[in-house]
Amino acid sequence: MLRIGMLTSGGDCQALNAAMRGVVKTIYNNSKEDVEIFGFLAGYRGLIYSNFRMVTGKDFSGILTKGGTILGSSRTPFKTIEEPDENGLDKVEAMVHTYHKLNLDCLVVLGGNGTHKTANLLRTKGLNIVTLPKTIDNDLWGTDMTFGFQSAVDIATNVIDCIHTTADSHRRVFIVEVMGHKTGWLTLNAGMASGADIILIPEIPYDIKKIVKAIKRRQENGSGFTILAVAEGAISKEDAQLTKKEYKKKVEKRVHPTVSYELAKQIQDETGLEVRVTVPGHMQRGGSPCPYDRVFASRLGSEAGKLILKGEYGFMVGYKNREIVKVPLEEVAGKLKTVDPDATIVKEAKMLGICFGD
Amino acid sequence: MLRIGMLTSGGDCQALNAAMRGVVKTIYNNSKEDVEIFGFLAGYRGLIYSNFRMVTGKDFSGILTKGGTILGSSRTPFKTIEEPDENGLDKVEAMVHTYHKLNLDCLVVLGGNGTHKTANLLRTKGLNIVTLPKTIDNDLWGTDMTFGFQSAVDIATNVIDCIHTTADSHRRVFIVEVMGHKTGWLTLNAGMASGADIILIPEIPYDIKKIVKAIKRRQENGSGFTILAVAEGAISKEDAQLTKKEYKKKVEKRVHPTVSYELAKQIQDETGLEVRVTVPGHMQRGGSPCPYDRVFASRLGSEAGKLILKGEYGFMVGYKNREIVKVPLEEVAGKLKTVDPDATIVKEAKMLGICFGD
Amino acid sequence: MLRIGMLTSGGDCQALNAAMRGVVKTIYNNSKEDVEIFGFLAGYRGLIYSNFRMVTGKDFSGILTKGGTILGSSRTPFKTIEEPDENGLDKVEAMVHTYHKLNLDCLVVLGGNGTHKTANLLRTKGLNIVTLPKTIDNDLWGTDMTFGFQSAVDIATNVIDCIHTTADSHRRVFIVEVMGHKTGWLTLNAGMASGADIILIPEIPYDIKKIVKAIKRRQENGSGFTILAVAEGAISKEDAQLTKKEYKKKVEKRVHPTVSYELAKQIQDETGLEVRVTVPGHMQRGGSPCPYDRVFASRLGSEAGKLILKGEYGFMVGYKNREIVKVPLEEVAGKLKTVDPDATIVKEAKMLGICFGD
Amino acid sequence: MLRIGMLTSGGDCQALNAAMRGVVKTIYNNSKEDVEIFGFLAGYRGLIYSNFRMVTGKDFSGILTKGGTILGSSRTPFKTIEEPDENGLDKVEAMVHTYHKLNLDCLVVLGGNGTHKTANLLRTKGLNIVTLPKTIDNDLWGTDMTFGFQSAVDIATNVIDCIHTTADSHRRVFIVEVMGHKTGWLTLNAGMASGADIILIPEIPYDIKKIVKAIKRRQENGSGFTILAVAEGAISKEDAQLTKKEYKKKVEKRVHPTVSYELAKQIQDETGLEVRVTVPGHMQRGGSPCPYDRVFASRLGSEAGKLILKGEYGFMVGYKNREIVKVPLEEVAGKLKTVDPDATIVKEAKMLGICFGD
Repeated sequence: MLRIGMLTSGGDCQALNAAMRGVVKTIYNNSKEDVEIFGFLAGYRGLIYSNFRMVTGKDFSGILTKGGTILGSSRTPFKTIEEPDENGLDKVEAMVHTYHKLNLDCLVVLGGNGTHKTANLLRTKGLNIVTLPKTIDNDLWGTDMTFGFQSAVDIATNVIDCIHTTADSHRRVFIVEVMGHKTGWLTLNAGMASGADIILIPEIPYDIKKIVKAIKRRQENGSGFTILAVAEGAISKEDAQLTKKEYKKKVEKRVHPTVSYELAKQIQDETGLEVRVTVPGHMQRGGSPCPYDRVFASRLGSEAGKLILKGEYGFMVGYKNREIVKVPLEEVAGKLKTVDPDATIVKEAKMLGICFGD
Repeated sequence: MLRIGMLTSGGDCQALNAAMRGVVKTIYNNSKEDVEIFGFLAGYRGLIYSNFRMVTGKDFSGILTKGGTILGSSRTPFKTIEEPDENGLDKVEAMVHTYHKLNLDCLVVLGGNGTHKTANLLRTKGLNIVTLPKTIDNDLWGTDMTFGFQSAVDIATNVIDCIHTTADSHRRVFIVEVMGHKTGWLTLNAGMASGADIILIPEIPYDIKKIVKAIKRRQENGSGFTILAVAEGAISKEDAQLTKKEYKKKVEKRVHPTVSYELAKQIQDETGLEVRVTVPGHMQRGGSPCPYDRVFASRLGSEAGKLILKGEYGFMVGYKNREIVKVPLEEVAGKLKTVDPDATIVKEAKMLGICFGD
Repeated sequence: MLRIGMLTSGGDCQALNAAMRGVVKTIYNNSKEDVEIFGFLAGYRGLIYSNFRMVTGKDFSGILTKGGTILGSSRTPFKTIEEPDENGLDKVEAMVHTYHKLNLDCLVVLGGNGTHKTANLLRTKGLNIVTLPKTIDNDLWGTDMTFGFQSAVDIATNVIDCIHTTADSHRRVFIVEVMGHKTGWLTLNAGMASGADIILIPEIPYDIKKIVKAIKRRQENGSGFTILAVAEGAISKEDAQLTKKEYKKKVEKRVHPTVSYELAKQIQDETGLEVRVTVPGHMQRGGSPCPYDRVFASRLGSEAGKLILKGEYGFMVGYKNREIVKVPLEEVAGKLKTVDPDATIVKEAKMLGICFGD
Repeated sequence: MLRIGMLTSGGDCQALNAAMRGVVKTIYNNSKEDVEIFGFLAGYRGLIYSNFRMVTGKDFSGILTKGGTILGSSRTPFKTIEEPDENGLDKVEAMVHTYHKLNLDCLVVLGGNGTHKTANLLRTKGLNIVTLPKTIDNDLWGTDMTFGFQSAVDIATNVIDCIHTTADSHRRVFIVEVMGHKTGWLTLNAGMASGADIILIPEIPYDIKKIVKAIKRRQENGSGFTILAVAEGAISKEDAQLTKKEYKKKVEKRVHPTVSYELAKQIQDETGLEVRVTVPGHMQRGGSPCPYDRVFASRLGSEAGKLILKGEYGFMVGYKNREIVKVPLEEVAGKLKTVDPDATIVKEAKMLGICFGD
C-alpha cells in the first residue's frame, strides 16, 4: 500500500489541478501496490490540523482545464511558521505528527517560494517530500519555468491588447500594472507580447526623467499614445537606494495604493497628458490554464509520480535546458530567480525600441 | 456628388469601426452619385477645427474586427459646448461653419449620451445629422441595445470567471468593479453571466447589512467564497438620500478611489473575511468586438447608409423590439435609459438567489 | 412534496447546464414544498427505461459555464418514436409509465425541434410538460432566440476569423462549412460577423454562376481572396427544384461528403483558383457558453421554474420581442423557423455587398 | 545605405508579421546607415519576378498581433525550383538577378522546410541570407522551437476542448484531425493539453487493434466517450511497411479524404460506436499569434536584425537550450526534426495513460 499526502499552498495559480492530475494518474496507472491519496485542504493548514479528504482518479477526471485547486490553498504558515498558532500549537510539530499518524509514505507539495521553504524544513524533519514549482511569478530558483506563468502572461497580454485600442483612439498614456511579486518575468513577457512601449521591472530601477522623455519622443513622432507595462514591484532609482526598512516606511505613507498610481501622477504632472491606470489584479492567476501550462504541468506531475514510484524524495521537479530534472530541495529553498538586467531578452527588447527607464 | 462627414465622439468602444464600415460600404455599393467621405479626427474636435482626412472603402477594409476607432475620439466639447474655447472660438458656430465650408450633405455621428446632446444641438442649427448608438453602458434612450455593450459584457464576464477560480481556492470575498457609468446594465448582465452571488447597481441602492448577511449565509452554507459584481456607480441607500451636491462632496472626501474599495473595507470590518478588489477598468471598452456587436453594428451602419441615400435626416438609428428603427434626435438627447428595479430580468435574478442588497 | 423530472434531448449545445441550473435554483430557492428532482439520463432514453439519478442544487453548482449536459443526451426516440424498441417495448407508453410510476408532478424537457414533437406527444398523453428551447440552429418556432445559438455564432465566427488571415496571405478561396441543419441563421450571423464575402443558406438557393462571377469580380478588384460561409444545408437552384426524394438520392450519390466539397470543385473548375474547405463540425456545439447564452438560458430556466411553482404546464418558455413568454406546445411542435429571404437583415447584408448567390 | 530584401514563403502561420516587425524595428532603431527594405510579394515568386514594395517601420506598426503576412506568401518555387517556369525562365537565376539588380546587401527569408532548401541554394549562389524558422509543424532541424507552433497548439487544443463537452454528453468517439505535416509535434502537444485519450502521430505507427482495445476498455470503465487526436500524417503499422511509392498509390485510392475518416470507419465497424470526425484544417495556421509566439518571434527577429547589422550571413536564427543561436543554413536544409518515439514527453504521456496505438 502506497500512502501519499498532497497539498497546494500559497497564492493559487492556473494548472494546479493539471499538475495534481498528472501525479495521481501516473501513480494509479503505474503503481504495483494499492494506492491511497490524502488531499490536505487549504494548504499546510490541512496538514497542521489533519484536515483532509481521500481523493482518487475520479476526482481528477475533467479538471485538466480547470483553474484554481480542488484542494484549496492558503498562505497561512509561511510568515509565521516558526511561531505557534493562537492555541499554542507548534505548527511544524503538528505537521510532522499528522504525517506519521496517517502513516504516509510521502508528501507532494505544490507551491512557490514560501511553500518551498516550509517543504525543505519538513524534509529536514525526516518527511519524504516531492514538490512541484507553481507560481505565476516564475521566480523559483532551480527551474527555468514554473507552471501558471505562461497562463498569466496570456491574461496580462490580453489586458494590454484591449487597452491598446482605447489608448490609440484617445491618444492617452496607459499604465497596466502587472503582477510578479518582486520579479519582472511576467511584466517583461506580457509587455513584449503586447507591444508595450515602456516596461518597468524591479530588477531595473527606473529614472522618471527617462520615462517622461520616452513619452515625449513618442508624442513628437506622432504616435500619440504610450503604453507602460509596470510590474507591481517596479521601483525608482532613488527608492532602490533606500534600505529595506526605509522603503517599507515610504510605501506605507504612499497616498496611492500602488506604484502605478504614483507613476501616473508623476507622468501627468510632467507631460500634461491624461494617464489612466488599469490593475487586472487577481484575474492574472485565475481561469483555465493555457495549453502550454497544461502540457507542462502534466509532464511535471507525471515525473513527480515517477519519483514517488521509485521512492526518490527530497526533490523539486524542475525544468532546465528543456529537460525535466530533479532539484534537491535545499538548493531551492529561500532563493529567488530574478531577471538579469543584462539578459539577452532584455537586450533584444531594447533593440526593438522598448524603454526600461534606465 | 454626395459629401458625407463622419465622426466618433465620447469614450471609445468596440465595433465603432464595424459601424462606420457598414455606413461606408452601404453608401459606396448603392449610391448612384459619386461619394466623398470626410473623416473628422478626434470627435467633434475635428469638426470644430476642420481637422479631417478623406476616407474611402479601402480604409474600412479589414477593420470589422478591430477595436477602437480609426478616426480617433475625444470627450472635448460635451462638458463645455456652450463656452468658447481657450481662444474665444464659439465651438458650435465653428462646427456649423466647417460643415458648410466643406459643403457637406450630412454628418454621421457615432456616440453615446453626451454626443447625442451635441448632435441634436447641431440639428437645431440646420445640419443634416444621422447618429449611431455607441456605448458599452447601454444607457441610451430610444434603443433597446447599443453596440459595444455585448463586447463589454463578454470582457467583464471573463474577468469574473477568472476571479471565480481564485476566490474558490482561497475562500475569499472578491469585488469586481464593472463599468456602466450611472446605470447597471453592464454589471447586471456580466454578474448574471458569471454567476456572481451579489450584484450592486445604481438603480437599486444597497443596504450594507443585507450584503453582510448574504455573505455570512454563504459562509454558513459552506460555500466559503462570495463574488460581488459592483457597478462603478453603485450607491448605498443612505447616499441615495443625499442631494447631488452633498453626494459629490462626500465622494471627493473618500479615502478610497472608488465605491468598491469602500465596500471592501466595510465588508472586511463586518465579517473578518479577506476581501479583494479587481478593477478591470478601460479594458472593458477595448479589444475586438464580439460577433454579436459586429453583426449589430454592421446592420445599424447599413441602415444609416440607407437613410442617407434616401436623404432622411435628424434620426438616430436604433433597435426596438427586434426591429431596426429611426428615432428622432430630439427624443434621444438628454435622456438616460436605466434598469427598472422591477424589471423581469431583475426578478429572475432574485429568484436565482442573487442578492441585490435591497 | 414537488417531484420534478428533467431531461436534455437531441444534439447537445452550450448552456444546457446553465438552463437546468436556472430551473433548479429557482425552484429550490422559492418552493414552499420539499423538492425532489429526477434527472433522466441520455434524453428520452432515460425516461423510457427509467434510468435516472436524483439531482440537487449541489449538482448544479459551478456548471453555469460548463458546456455539454450533465444528464447526457441522445437522439434516440425521435426518428422512431412511433415504433417499438428492439424488445417490442412501446416507447411512448414506457415514458408515460415511468412518469406515473415515479409520481412526478411535471417533466422539464430541454431540446430542439425533434424533442418538442415528442414533448407535445407526451403532453397529449396527459403529462405535465415544460420545455426550454435549446439548439444552435435557432430554428425553433415560437421563440425569437434559442440558447446555444449565440455561442455557436461565436465559434463559427472565430473559425472564419482565423481563416481570413491565411486566405489573405495566400490569395485563396476558402469555404467554411457552418452548421445550422436546414436553416441559415447560424451561417448568416457568423458570415456577417466575420466579413464573409459570400453567404449561402438553404433559404436562398444559389446559382453557381453568380458565385463564380462574384469571385472573379473580387479578383479583378485586387482583393485576391474570397471567403464563403456556406450552411451545411445550402442548396443550388437546380437542386431546390427536385422533389425531396430525388434530392436525397442525388445527395447519396455525391462523391464529396458535403455540399462544400462539391462547391469547391465547381469553383476551382470555373475559376482556376485554389479552393480550400474547412469543416469545424461539432466544435460549434461545444465549449463554454458565451455570456449572452448564460444570461439567456438562466433567465429561461428561471421562468420555467416559475411556471412549475405556479403549476402551469404545456408550454415552451420562449422569447418574443424582448419579452419572455410561454408558448403552447402544440404551436411549437413540428414547425420550423427559417430565414425569410426578404428579411431586413438579408437586405442589409446585400447592401453591405455580401453575395447570396441569388 | 543598407539595402535589405525580405520575403515570407510557404504555408503561412501566426507571428510572421511579429517576426518581420522584430527585424525591421531592430534595424531602424540601431543602424548607423540609412536603411531601405524591399518587401518581396508572395514569397520567392516576388523575388523571381522582381515584384516588391518598399516597407518602412510604419508598415510594421500595429501588426505584432496580426495573423498572416503583410507580404503575402506562396508555395511556388519549392517543388519545381529546378525547372524553368512556363515561359522558360530559370527561377534560381532570376532570383539571383533580382538580388543584384536591386543591389541588396542581404535577404531575410521567413519559412519552413521547403523554404530553407531554396534559401540554402541561394546562399550557394553567393547571396547573403538570414532566415527565420516559421512553421506550425515545429519540424525544422536546428531549432528546438519554431514560431507559429504554440499558436497552432492553442487553436487545436481549443477545438478538442469544444469537442470534449459534446463527446461527453453523447458518449461518442470523436476524432480530431490535427495538422503537422509528416511530424507529430502539434498533435502530441494539443492532445496532451486537451486530455485526449488516444494520440496518433506519424512517428509511432499505430495498430488498429490496440486502438479498439483502448476504446473498449474506456467503455467498460464507464467513461463512455473517447477522444482521439490524430495527426494528418498518422500511419498504421502495415502502411508504414510499404515503400513510399506503394503508400502514395494506396492513399490515392482511398475513398475517404484523410486518414481520420478511414480510422473512423474502422473503429465504427469494430466497436459499433458512433464515431465523428472534425477537421479544423487551415484555421490552425490563422488568427492572432499567441503571446508566447509574439515574444519568441520578436526575439528571433531582433537577433536576425543584429546579424544583419554585424554583416553575418548564411544562418538561420534558431533556439537551442533556451539560448538564441545562429545555425549554418547548410545544416538546416533538407532535414526534418521528428518526435523521437522514446522521448521523455512520450513516456510521460504513456504513464498518464494516453494510448499511442503502439
